[in-house]
Amino acid sequence: MNNEESKAFQSIEWKDNSLTIIDQTHLPSREVYTQLNSVGQVWDAIKKLKVRGAPAIGISAAYGLYLGVRDLPDSGYTSFYSECERISSYLNSSRPTAVNLSWALNRLLATVKSRKELPTDELKLLILNTAKIIHDEDRRMCKAIGEHGVELVPDQASVLTHCNTGGLATGQYGTAFSVIFHAHQAGKIEHVWVDETRPLLQGARLTTWELAKADIPHQLIVDSAAAYLMQSGRVDMVITGADRITKNGDSANKIGTYALAVLAKEHNIPFYIAAPSSTIDMSLETGGDIDIELRDTSEITSFAGKQSAPDNTDVFNPAFDVTPHRFITAIVTEKGIIKPDFSDNFQSAFT
Amino acid sequence: MNNEESKAFQSIEWKDNSLTIIDQTHLPSREVYTQLNSVGQVWDAIKKLKVRGAPAIGISAAYGLYLGVRDLPDSGYTSFYSECERISSYLNSSRPTAVNLSWALNRLLATVKSRKELPTDELKLLILNTAKIIHDEDRRMCKAIGEHGVELVPDQASVLTHCNTGGLATGQYGTAFSVIFHAHQAGKIEHVWVDETRPLLQGARLTTWELAKADIPHQLIVDSAAAYLMQSGRVDMVITGADRITKNGDSANKIGTYALAVLAKEHNIPFYIAAPSSTIDMSLETGGDIDIELRDTSEITSFAGKQSAPDNTDVFNPAFDVTPHRFITAIVTEKGIIKPDFSDNFQSAFT
Repeated sequence: MNNEESKAFQSIEWKDNSLTIIDQTHLPSREVYTQLNSVGQVWDAIKKLKVRGAPAIGISAAYGLYLGVRDLPDSGYTSFYSECERISSYLNSSRPTAVNLSWALNRLLATVKSRKELPTDELKLLILNTAKIIHDEDRRMCKAIGEHGVELVPDQASVLTHCNTGGLATGQYGTAFSVIFHAHQAGKIEHVWVDETRPLLQGARLTTWELAKADIPHQLIVDSAAAYLMQSGRVDMVITGADRITKNGDSANKIGTYALAVLAKEHNIPFYIAAPSSTIDMSLETGGDIDIELRDTSEITSFAGKQSAPDNTDVFNPAFDVTPHRFITAIVTEKGIIKPDFSDNFQSAFT
Repeated sequence: MNNEESKAFQSIEWKDNSLTIIDQTHLPSREVYTQLNSVGQVWDAIKKLKVRGAPAIGISAAYGLYLGVRDLPDSGYTSFYSECERISSYLNSSRPTAVNLSWALNRLLATVKSRKELPTDELKLLILNTAKIIHDEDRRMCKAIGEHGVELVPDQASVLTHCNTGGLATGQYGTAFSVIFHAHQAGKIEHVWVDETRPLLQGARLTTWELAKADIPHQLIVDSAAAYLMQSGRVDMVITGADRITKNGDSANKIGTYALAVLAKEHNIPFYIAAPSSTIDMSLETGGDIDIELRDTSEITSFAGKQSAPDNTDVFNPAFDVTPHRFITAIVTEKGIIKPDFSDNFQSAFT
């Protein structure tokens, strides 16, 4: 990795035979790195959101399984495998709804099972190496998303983004952030506008922090100021991540994304989604099939323990919205850029 | 005033020969009323934002001038008038940029000057009565805005609003809030969606509080969730206030208003502005002539003293945006509803 590349922040590193993470609960005010040397410490880090972001959680859990089995005595395959299962379900309990968590652990268990002829010591190394592969695959996938996306970015671009899509949540580089990062390396980024992203302020807390780490010029705005920036000609493109994309290209992402897409269209500004191809769920026909999670009232009625709305105020707090495909100029994946018609082009890209 | 009317909150009341205000610095967590018995207390209340909102500040200052002169000895007109001037400029210094403040005080001074033949005791009462008239005129103007606006509200309406436009900032009723209030009295309001209104959260802190006082059903949302509500058919109309309206109908209002107007148009939802006719500045041709105030970084990088973005994060914090007239379905004033073409119709309504 060259010097420039290293500015793409890594929230997880395997070094000196242990897992080093940045403790995200201290961001943005302090940059605290923590060494995790046991499966219990990894469980705790995931539980307490020191590590967050679906891919980052999966990667950490994979290393966590290795830390859990590393010092086991050699008592044969059956006993070893059942310990692996026990530790996996323990790790899974740290955030039961995180899909990448169980996905990574199941992959490790399947790998162990497929090589049951190996001695315990080699199975341990197999787990570590598979964890490294999972980490590296994610990093390379994010890098590919970014590299593909560069061609969408005009010279001297002012780019607007929403929420946090960078290396804090992934192996490295992120998704929409990766496009911005690689376009910046290519000398194309003049300015990034960062939506603060209410209610949880991931843009204000995390994206600004990652942009500063990468020396990318940026300014923070309230979400509702994006329209004014577009109106005054200060936005050349919008790019966000996605949590789920349906067969026709409809994309679910953090609340506020749909508003940006409508506003971009009104101002003739291209609107892009960047996401790994695994985000595309061909079993869902349209965005109407996606359930919108409603989250807790307190996310809106208070901040840092300080009340910001009257007692008992009723709140409507959807976590996501769905941007219909007709507002999306293109979707950037690790396999390349997909343009409309998405239904047809997903089929040909991924089959 | 009947029982229902009294639910339209009054932030300022003249009673028992003193001024009672609700101390808005304690909202939304506590409802604290304060009696102001001297001009110094009024100055302090305006300075410390216990009273806020342009009309409410003007009304308070008018009563403040009376409190300042009430106990002056009778030493002739010239001496009395120069005391009035001294107290006025003292009150003006509490918030030098508030236009209504100097407007109300200048009106009182002009009134005194026009009746210099009166004895000092009667001039004192003239000031009190003129303060009451200023208060009452504002109340009646707000009521008229609300009553005119009712016809725009469909039955069983779900109305979305932004920022605070109610009685806390005015003599009573407010502007957009007055339309909602009177439509609710007419049985037309099913639900109000309240934008929290970043960065200063006037919607979360104040509008929810006023709606609760008036028993109007409502839910608080983050600003960026409005698009999702419109998309899912849960908004029948949008109504906001305005800080300044130009000759062609372009309207400056709290940041985020323009986004709502674009989103409303995309979803075929009517978008209304409610404002006193004094807001219409016929000396400005278009919204391009309005300067957009940029406000302090700290409004976005921290909340209640808690840091929410990294140190030294650069911020772009426009206080207002301008909604071009083509997005505005109608403008409600105390003189009636003005529809496009606004240029022509302002002329005929106000000349």
